[in-house]
Amino acid sequence: MAVNFPLPTPFKLKPVPGIQLGYAEAGIKKPNRKDLLVLKLAPTATVAGVFTTNRFCAAPVQLSKAHLAQAASSGKPIAALVINTGNANAGTGEAGMANAQATCDALAKLLGCDASQVLPFSTGVILEPLPVDKLVAGLPLAIANLTENNWFSAAQSIMTTDTLPKAASRTITIAGKKVTLTGISKGAGMIRPNMATMLGFVACDAKVPQALLDKMVKEAADASFNCITIDGDTSTNDSFMLIATGAGELEVSSADSDEYQALAAAVTWLSQELAQLIVRDGEGATKFITISIEQGRDAEECRKIAYAIAHSPLVKTAFFASDPNLGRILAAIGYAGVADLDVSKIDLYLDDVWVAKQGGRNPDYREEDGKRVMQQSEIGVRVMLARGDARAQVWTCDLSHEYVSINADYRS
Amino acid sequence: MAVNFPLPTPFKLKPVPGIQLGYAEAGIKKPNRKDLLVLKLAPTATVAGVFTTNRFCAAPVQLSKAHLAQAASSGKPIAALVINTGNANAGTGEAGMANAQATCDALAKLLGCDASQVLPFSTGVILEPLPVDKLVAGLPLAIANLTENNWFSAAQSIMTTDTLPKAASRTITIAGKKVTLTGISKGAGMIRPNMATMLGFVACDAKVPQALLDKMVKEAADASFNCITIDGDTSTNDSFMLIATGAGELEVSSADSDEYQALAAAVTWLSQELAQLIVRDGEGATKFITISIEQGRDAEECRKIAYAIAHSPLVKTAFFASDPNLGRILAAIGYAGVADLDVSKIDLYLDDVWVAKQGGRNPDYREEDGKRVMQQSEIGVRVMLARGDARAQVWTCDLSHEYVSINADYRS
Repeated sequence: MAVNFPLPTPFKLKPVPGIQLGYAEAGIKKPNRKDLLVLKLAPTATVAGVFTTNRFCAAPVQLSKAHLAQAASSGKPIAALVINTGNANAGTGEAGMANAQATCDALAKLLGCDASQVLPFSTGVILEPLPVDKLVAGLPLAIANLTENNWFSAAQSIMTTDTLPKAASRTITIAGKKVTLTGISKGAGMIRPNMATMLGFVACDAKVPQALLDKMVKEAADASFNCITIDGDTSTNDSFMLIATGAGELEVSSADSDEYQALAAAVTWLSQELAQLIVRDGEGATKFITISIEQGRDAEECRKIAYAIAHSPLVKTAFFASDPNLGRILAAIGYAGVADLDVSKIDLYLDDVWVAKQGGRNPDYREEDGKRVMQQSEIGVRVMLARGDARAQVWTCDLSHEYVSINADYRS
Repeated sequence: MAVNFPLPTPFKLKPVPGIQLGYAEAGIKKPNRKDLLVLKLAPTATVAGVFTTNRFCAAPVQLSKAHLAQAASSGKPIAALVINTGNANAGTGEAGMANAQATCDALAKLLGCDASQVLPFSTGVILEPLPVDKLVAGLPLAIANLTENNWFSAAQSIMTTDTLPKAASRTITIAGKKVTLTGISKGAGMIRPNMATMLGFVACDAKVPQALLDKMVKEAADASFNCITIDGDTSTNDSFMLIATGAGELEVSSADSDEYQALAAAVTWLSQELAQLIVRDGEGATKFITISIEQGRDAEECRKIAYAIAHSPLVKTAFFASDPNLGRILAAIGYAGVADLDVSKIDLYLDDVWVAKQGGRNPDYREEDGKRVMQQSEIGVRVMLARGDARAQVWTCDLSHEYVSINADYRS
């Protein structure tokens, strides 16, 4: 049911010098599917990330955070990332931490590095013990096929309820130097990232010092993965990682430089593409909806209103039905929690159709115009608050029978 | 699809001396259905209410608030309430206010009172003009059948997507004096009351001064209609009204009196029953779920967590599927927004089954025990936070295919 999804193909995904990818079918939840991925980094690489704000954050998230901090203080760079699907290793207590540690230990031994130079990631069912033996047994298989050309398989091997692999790639020239960026993402449900999405990995071959990469990853996440929602459920495992391998031509040295600005813009662009792919492949999605709130007092209130609209089951089912029952959007604006909102000033547009004017139905609005836009597969909702210059944008999808079916059957 | 719904019957609904009810088929949205209700009050009656916090609150809500304030200051008591279904008169701007005023004018003229002594209520589709001519034409018909015995028809005449009429009744003795309480409610979608539900009306025949009734209605709403949610969508028209007709034996004179405490308890009990009926008849509901959060630092954080669980589409679809995919509950606890929550202390129970212990899977938990409870039509979720004495409870239902169908078809 994906909406206007641009299918990635292996030949469109450019290898990023300084990063090799290997995968395996480890049988973590089901046999005969790629469910284990290893990324091996050049020693020149820097890595930065943002993680879920969920208090029940998964064991691998906790360990990845600790290892990133250790790498920054010890000077021993991150050497590898390991990702499994089929099990989130979340809500698993101390046993879960031990299993995440055992994963790092095993990969470090195979690669000849410290366990603290490995970042682990998991995604799948919560509250079930990680079958760590199967995972560890799969690692030599993944290492055996490490190559720079495996991005497409990598995108496939991190899928769970995703119906399509998600990847994007771009080559740009900054200050006369070539930079390659390639990224993958996964996620289709439990999506309302708050710092990052389920899983997203973007690599480039520029050389970027740690502090600048930390800044860049936050900027990119805020403009991409932090602007999407499918069901409002912030996952326990959200992680978005940015890798700069340092194996290419470009070197970035200051946040004020043109090189930083250009690279950050390219990273943000790629991250937005990967984030939007998650919405396009949202569980049961039949519509891709861009919600823009403008003329707000600050970005925070604009985001509140955008998310209230994006999370309303009534708004989402109206989109699914192509029914211009647009009073539901006004109701969501009204309960978004902006206490002093003057609704008599609010205008609402559906694409180019002016639906509500100064808080009431626009006298010139015709139902058939609303119907026409609602039948599109890509729809823009625009709300003008008339109280400032701030704005925010959120991308979301509709709520269909298929969403219920997928989530009623997920574990079976 | 209602869950264990106790069908009201006319003979079980006791008339409340001092209040007459009349209805009509005014054809506001569709022909041949009761869609207009008038409540006529004895001159001794006091009326108090709580209303939606939605900023897009409907024109009748604004007018009812103003008329209640006017009654309190002028000493001219509220004489009647008028309720229409089929149109919410919300998101209708100045024309909507004029239509609500015209409704009050017309009823006041028929009853021989001031327009400010009439409280108007509407429920139905938002953003569409109220067909006020049809409504006004129906008023004489409603007045023609005014009687104290019309509670069952009254419950029917305020239904929208409700599949069943909602009403409850009770006679109690306080300080040797008989008190009769009867109430009705409606609502099945756009339910996450924040002050009150879509519509709820409770009447008793005690004599209660305005200030005490104001206090009583807030207490009852907080313990009933403010503890339910179906889809998290706070309506534009929520109103919960408490009427004390003063036509019976009991007179309440002080908030410290035993009489006040007993009557407030009875009103709260009846309100809880009416609120729970709304959840039992929730759009597409197949399960009735009670979420209890205990050992919190304060009630507010307990409510945050209870609502995060109750609103999670993933939790709700798992209930629909009878699938003990209970990690989804942990995830919802984790993203509820309680910043310093120590998840390693949290216990989770499903009825009598101990699922999670100190933040991880209880080693003694068996999947078949979880499955057994998930298959019930009434399920209790209990979360122990181990950080205080506060608690909160929320009642909700599951998310089914039927919810999507109902809301994709609502206007057709």
